[in-house]
Amino acid sequence: MFQTFQDTASPEQGPVRLKALREAMLAEGVDGFIVPRSDAHQGEYVAPRDERLAWLTGFTGSAGWCVALADRAAVFVDGRYRVQVKAQVAPSFEKVDWPETSLADWIGAALPKGVVSFDPWLLSVDQLRGLEGKLEHDLRPCRNLVDAIWQDQPAPPMGAVFAQPVTLSGEPHEDKIARLAAGLGAAKVAVITLPDSIAWLLNIRGSDIPRNPVPHGFALLHSDARVTLFMDAGKLEGVHEHFGPRVTLAAPEAFEEALAALEGPVQIDPGTCPVAVAKALEGRDLIEADDPCLLPKACKNAVELDGTRAAHLRDAAAMVRFLAWLDAEAPGDLTEISVVKRLEEERRATNALRDISFETISGSGPNGAIVHYRVTEATDRPLKEGELLLVDSGGQYVDGTTDITRTLAIGAVGREEAEAFTRVLKGMIAISGLRFPKGLAGRDIDPFARAALWQAGLDYGHGTGHGVGSYLSVHEGPARISRAGTVPFEPGMILSNEPGFYREGAYGIRIENLIVVEEAPDLPGQTVPQMLRFETLTWVPIDRRLILTELLTETERNWLNAYHAEVLEQVAPLVDDVAGGWLSQACQSI
Amino acid sequence: MFQTFQDTASPEQGPVRLKALREAMLAEGVDGFIVPRSDAHQGEYVAPRDERLAWLTGFTGSAGWCVALADRAAVFVDGRYRVQVKAQVAPSFEKVDWPETSLADWIGAALPKGVVSFDPWLLSVDQLRGLEGKLEHDLRPCRNLVDAIWQDQPAPPMGAVFAQPVTLSGEPHEDKIARLAAGLGAAKVAVITLPDSIAWLLNIRGSDIPRNPVPHGFALLHSDARVTLFMDAGKLEGVHEHFGPRVTLAAPEAFEEALAALEGPVQIDPGTCPVAVAKALEGRDLIEADDPCLLPKACKNAVELDGTRAAHLRDAAAMVRFLAWLDAEAPGDLTEISVVKRLEEERRATNALRDISFETISGSGPNGAIVHYRVTEATDRPLKEGELLLVDSGGQYVDGTTDITRTLAIGAVGREEAEAFTRVLKGMIAISGLRFPKGLAGRDIDPFARAALWQAGLDYGHGTGHGVGSYLSVHEGPARISRAGTVPFEPGMILSNEPGFYREGAYGIRIENLIVVEEAPDLPGQTVPQMLRFETLTWVPIDRRLILTELLTETERNWLNAYHAEVLEQVAPLVDDVAGGWLSQACQSI
Repeated sequence: MFQTFQDTASPEQGPVRLKALREAMLAEGVDGFIVPRSDAHQGEYVAPRDERLAWLTGFTGSAGWCVALADRAAVFVDGRYRVQVKAQVAPSFEKVDWPETSLADWIGAALPKGVVSFDPWLLSVDQLRGLEGKLEHDLRPCRNLVDAIWQDQPAPPMGAVFAQPVTLSGEPHEDKIARLAAGLGAAKVAVITLPDSIAWLLNIRGSDIPRNPVPHGFALLHSDARVTLFMDAGKLEGVHEHFGPRVTLAAPEAFEEALAALEGPVQIDPGTCPVAVAKALEGRDLIEADDPCLLPKACKNAVELDGTRAAHLRDAAAMVRFLAWLDAEAPGDLTEISVVKRLEEERRATNALRDISFETISGSGPNGAIVHYRVTEATDRPLKEGELLLVDSGGQYVDGTTDITRTLAIGAVGREEAEAFTRVLKGMIAISGLRFPKGLAGRDIDPFARAALWQAGLDYGHGTGHGVGSYLSVHEGPARISRAGTVPFEPGMILSNEPGFYREGAYGIRIENLIVVEEAPDLPGQTVPQMLRFETLTWVPIDRRLILTELLTETERNWLNAYHAEVLEQVAPLVDDVAGGWLSQACQSI
Repeated sequence: MFQTFQDTASPEQGPVRLKALREAMLAEGVDGFIVPRSDAHQGEYVAPRDERLAWLTGFTGSAGWCVALADRAAVFVDGRYRVQVKAQVAPSFEKVDWPETSLADWIGAALPKGVVSFDPWLLSVDQLRGLEGKLEHDLRPCRNLVDAIWQDQPAPPMGAVFAQPVTLSGEPHEDKIARLAAGLGAAKVAVITLPDSIAWLLNIRGSDIPRNPVPHGFALLHSDARVTLFMDAGKLEGVHEHFGPRVTLAAPEAFEEALAALEGPVQIDPGTCPVAVAKALEGRDLIEADDPCLLPKACKNAVELDGTRAAHLRDAAAMVRFLAWLDAEAPGDLTEISVVKRLEEERRATNALRDISFETISGSGPNGAIVHYRVTEATDRPLKEGELLLVDSGGQYVDGTTDITRTLAIGAVGREEAEAFTRVLKGMIAISGLRFPKGLAGRDIDPFARAALWQAGLDYGHGTGHGVGSYLSVHEGPARISRAGTVPFEPGMILSNEPGFYREGAYGIRIENLIVVEEAPDLPGQTVPQMLRFETLTWVPIDRRLILTELLTETERNWLNAYHAEVLEQVAPLVDDVAGGWLSQACQSI
């Protein structure tokens, strides 16, 4: 099992460790120390060595901050984690609603003046600017004071790196390097600090952190189409042959020195570039721009799209076997954990699963309303007749990354749930069937996913969709379907389409397919120069028992029936007779 | 008739006048002079005295600029006017596509260095900043050099001012003054330069410019709930009793001196405040904020809404009489001009029409595709069997401002036009029937008006709707339904809902109702704290002969049939038997 169901934090350690941190602060001569959840690469997952926030405070969520002062300390978490933080973190830490209250707001009120310090590898240039803009304090980089007191801190990860062959990546890394180098413009070199950017650019994958198949490292992309890769040689033993003359390997320890030796305009991405990198480049002509890999990585090529289609069919077969089993067994004495286990087993049975793409969300009844619920032994809940079960999960395969949510009826459920489910489905179909002018971004289409819910006074408090990588991060920028989505859609971008509805304390509904942006062929008489539309990647039945047919328009019914016909055609050959029988039933027209 | 059909420009005068302007520039010691179309109040309509751009260049459009240099001169117009400018302006002026090419871009390329001057009353603070940000030139305010050479320039307008009684405004001006003064915050005084803001705040109307019932003037709103109004006493004879102790009258000539005497923080709106005002306030503590009247003026109160409902019914009756006549007579030997004339006659026959709210757009066949078409004797086109006629018009009544577009079939028209019409209608219904969370703005709902067109590869190149005043400007900020609409909707805001489709050289379609934002009553089980929806104000049949019923959903058909039933119920009592017979036919269910 990739997944565990223990609560790994040690909240009772918090006060002791906070005391030790304060002693280290005193020795360092600083009045405050900032502990982010992030590592130097600003990703969603971090290595055990980088779990400083959890080690110090007990809080195990995927985003958050701690600020320690001599007499006060606070943990900052967003709306997803406000219940969890209370259970995991000792009272010696105040709990602050973030980002409603920013770190600067709290520091400004708690400490009139003084030295506030931080590890410059863990704060981005933009994050530091945000603090500088609001605080008059001396904001001082220093060594990591958590590392200084963490006696048994794990070593940096040393996961083996392997090549992503061009049969899966679709473009030799030499070509990617040349293409991006040519686009650098005035910059002589770009600093790349995001692991998935480096993995994409060099056609490598790694295993330094859970869920995301990337190695930790830094890279310099030179305008003469060379790359310097700063990565521990111990991880690279299997791939020396792979890199070729365009790539020079160097030790991670050499990175700062190499930065200091750079000449000419240097490009950094202030949103993710560590302060330490900018400090090392001080005095140099800096160009601020997005990481140059972001957009080309998001626009998958034909080979990557073929790969992801294959991965999605494989994953769909596992999902169908799982759903057939669930329908036969539930509720029985099944619990949320047994659901997670069975689903992971079905994915493993494909013999192609490299990892899950994130911790499975398996929420029964009221737990379904906790948007980022992760079941533990302490919270595990039995499935119950008449309740909904929300299962959001995905797999990492060498040819693609999947992410799917289905909400399932356990026995007969009430009309309220069915009506909400149908409205969520209408939103999901609205996005799936959209045709729209090139140039639009996520915020222009996000409302279509919500309109049917709005008609009933309902909505959901998250975006409609995020970008998805190609055997990379399941959450990938820069495009997304949300009110905050301003990056125009481009062909090849893979996105999730996952409207939902959550009735707190009662039930949660989410329906999620992955979709890919494609050019829409011109129609007779068309006046818009270029139109886009979505191809669906996910082929798994949507629970028809939860659909109120009379709420669907003819267009929506047609979409659903065509979708299920395609599911049956594509997936039936991939499953055994038992699952196949279930599938035929599940795919009947409405 | 309010409307004329002559082309009033004198393009042949352009070169002569440009020569005179260059002599004035030489005498003034400047290398360039900027002539905007705007007056000191930044509105859409200007008085004859302020038609400097038309006088100098011949261009009569409602937006544009001229820049004159010693050896080159250019007229800058937006996409609406690129055909018109070529016909109206002599070759001695270059024609520049604006805003794609900004004034600064052109000046920067045409004049390496030197003194570029302008009348500081005619440029806003933001406009000057835009130039300063891009040019190294000496940007120097000076006297108006067009006025200096315009021998027979008309005098400033002296239209009589009259009171808008509280039975129509719904709130005594004393209360408005007190309410806004209390909201000024740190500012001791706010400068108000927009005529419709002054008219709204003081419950007055005027007649200084066509189409907008406002007087020219400036005002100071003091934080102790007093207003100083700078306006020619000759215009105010009928309203001295109206103002009361909170309002002090002063001569327009005293305005600059009064500004110079102000103390304490002064609030200006840099988007519309003339440079001359900011110069007069130099050295003072300036607070930049939106004109404080903008938002309260946009949110109509119950009395204003009752007024606009009455105005809309009156206007609907005139429209119905007009449409009944048109159906009986067209095509006959009718032309676009005879349509405009008859429609204005029907509005005048209400005995309540104070003005039209803008020049009627009457576009037959291909002329319908010119979005801001204004018919002249030179362009007048007969109505023809099998073509569409687009009529966009409105009236100014003391109780409300109307704006309506109907697209009409002259005889039997083709399926292509009907399909496009039906898709436009679907978009218009989508906006009308929307229910959405409070907090959303125009850009969040604009796509709903376009989705049905997008499905066919079609779209339109303008926003879906603009704000509308209460017996004020037919184009009123700050909210609008468009990709650029970022001001959240508030109850009481009147907006137009006018999607369209234009096939260049063939036909134009637009369907426009006015709608007003209202709070939507809570629904059982609602989770969104506050929802909004739209009330429809416009009650005039939509041409059923152009609707392909099979393209409508059941919800859309129900909306249309309910709309027509309401039109019949509300308007039938207001028209004679002939028009009533036509109306019954036009309102039948589909």
